[in-house]
Amino acid sequence: MTRPANDTFLRALLRQPVDYTPVWLMRQAGRYLPEYCETRRRAGNFLSLCKNPAMACEVTLQPLARYALDAAILFSDILTVPDAMGLGLYFAEGEGPRFERPLREEWAIRDLAAPDPMVHLRYVMDAVSEIRRALNDSVPLIGFSGSPFTLACYMVEGGSSEDFRTVKTMLFDRPDLLHRILAVTTEAVTDYLNAQIEAGAQAVMIFDTWGGALPAWAFRQFSLDYTAQIVAQLTKQHDGERVPSIVFTKGGGQWLEAIAGIGCDAVGLDWTTDLAEARLRTSDRVALQGNLDPMALFASPNSIETETRRVIDNFGHHSKSSGHIFNLGHGISQHTPADHVSVLVDTVHQYSRAFHAVPPA
Amino acid sequence: MTRPANDTFLRALLRQPVDYTPVWLMRQAGRYLPEYCETRRRAGNFLSLCKNPAMACEVTLQPLARYALDAAILFSDILTVPDAMGLGLYFAEGEGPRFERPLREEWAIRDLAAPDPMVHLRYVMDAVSEIRRALNDSVPLIGFSGSPFTLACYMVEGGSSEDFRTVKTMLFDRPDLLHRILAVTTEAVTDYLNAQIEAGAQAVMIFDTWGGALPAWAFRQFSLDYTAQIVAQLTKQHDGERVPSIVFTKGGGQWLEAIAGIGCDAVGLDWTTDLAEARLRTSDRVALQGNLDPMALFASPNSIETETRRVIDNFGHHSKSSGHIFNLGHGISQHTPADHVSVLVDTVHQYSRAFHAVPPA
Repeated sequence: MTRPANDTFLRALLRQPVDYTPVWLMRQAGRYLPEYCETRRRAGNFLSLCKNPAMACEVTLQPLARYALDAAILFSDILTVPDAMGLGLYFAEGEGPRFERPLREEWAIRDLAAPDPMVHLRYVMDAVSEIRRALNDSVPLIGFSGSPFTLACYMVEGGSSEDFRTVKTMLFDRPDLLHRILAVTTEAVTDYLNAQIEAGAQAVMIFDTWGGALPAWAFRQFSLDYTAQIVAQLTKQHDGERVPSIVFTKGGGQWLEAIAGIGCDAVGLDWTTDLAEARLRTSDRVALQGNLDPMALFASPNSIETETRRVIDNFGHHSKSSGHIFNLGHGISQHTPADHVSVLVDTVHQYSRAFHAVPPA
Repeated sequence: MTRPANDTFLRALLRQPVDYTPVWLMRQAGRYLPEYCETRRRAGNFLSLCKNPAMACEVTLQPLARYALDAAILFSDILTVPDAMGLGLYFAEGEGPRFERPLREEWAIRDLAAPDPMVHLRYVMDAVSEIRRALNDSVPLIGFSGSPFTLACYMVEGGSSEDFRTVKTMLFDRPDLLHRILAVTTEAVTDYLNAQIEAGAQAVMIFDTWGGALPAWAFRQFSLDYTAQIVAQLTKQHDGERVPSIVFTKGGGQWLEAIAGIGCDAVGLDWTTDLAEARLRTSDRVALQGNLDPMALFASPNSIETETRRVIDNFGHHSKSSGHIFNLGHGISQHTPADHVSVLVDTVHQYSRAFHAVPPA
């Protein structure tokens, strides 16, 4: 049993009573922190940083040294999985991620296989173990992966895309090929997340960054069904503790009921979804994570406080079966003034306490 | 009374019985058509094309010569309104629209005034009249404008934006200034659309391209409330005919009930919203326009047919109070193969007939 000293985040995910709303930020270890940029410079480039467990550990801990965050998240990239599948990930300066061998040919798709995470993604597991040691059971560590559809977008497009033309053309013309990619990737992600749990991740999050770009029917068939398979196969208990799971579909607010129904413990929401409505729509059957607009961090400290309180007000008073984890609705922008983040974190901790008080019987 | 020979589009907007589902495409006069590129070349650039009524008329009619579309839409740009407000619109090659004088200073915002459309946007009204003459009451002509919030995004950012950082910072820090911009722009858009109706537009559409980038509460206060003011002040009857209005918020599926409640006749939907659910959520109290994923037009003709039928199936059988206008869920991509569009249009016309048959009593 290795319950962290501060287990507020884990308790909120499992909809257990907490004294205040826990908070962490997507991409909290990132370029808005000068110390991150410094470590990255030393690493040479982004990918070397991801593949060096000691440095990945170092940047994972950096935001915790600055802010009173209630969780750490493994520093890594969602594209390490397709990289381990042999697609050849690289980062062209200022251009985002690219693959040397995008998945376009039928033979390559037939040949695709799920990698053994303990062999091809060993550096991630080493980072997880090292971070757990360094955290020394202070706060929990979150592991993560991209969703199969989101990974498939990059794998087929060969990098970022504005319109997903190539992967969507495959979806419409050769759904069998896309389903094959998704099935293999589902196996890969399942093994990858379970290996992270084995190595010490105390909660896991699946990022479906691009599921929201799909038509409603296709979201179910090509994204949510595969995420559901992963959630069903996740290790639920490790080291005597429940390992909760979070599913975040950017732009997925319309499909909240469906997402909340796949067996995950929490659903991440971007800033377009009203949290009070989301609680009603899910009958408080899952915890909700989110959902401040990341752009609010560019406003003045006074406005950041107002907007942070607005999110807490919007979720409302906690009940016996509710859970809220404060977060941004998307990754923190690299241009965010680092000192603005303290205003957010401190406001969440102070202002949320009253919302967790036991209501009069 | 100048009812067009083909009034299927207008009837569907007003939820009156039709024999088949009418179809038109957002940005149907555009770069995917070689004849459009040719006219634009002759015009010199995009803005000269917009400002030349004869050429704007020419490109408006081009897609109608190729495809059996049920409506024409005025060829223009949503940024003509801020241009008429003195912001100095220009298009940097390959960079999209820019303003010479973005709205950043308080004094400039205080000085902002709604232009007289018959003076500063006379070229648009001349284009509307000329297109109506050229259409000769064959199909109806749609006029349009950007929504106040969408226009304000460009006006404050000074052009396109990936994250809307500047306009959102204003929203959080100086909501009074943003409200002032929106109030003046609302007046400008109202006058502009009513002038288009006076000049001959037989339906009008408001494009809220960026409303979907807002938090739910801010969407209501900074986008929908202003669109509602415009809809309330639109000329409802002209030349003896009802002039229907369509409101399209990209990414607004979550807020459909609210959008449908502002008094517009139809709501445009992007491809992420399920049409059957949308009918239930709005109790068929508005017509729905949409919502094929524009990327479906890159698939094979067989797949285009399948996906087009899927949208018609998704809307389902028509009732006495339902209306559906087939469209894409967003503007047609400039890379679309022009001959693929015929497959879509012909499939809509043929396949939809059975869905309009009177059900057995």
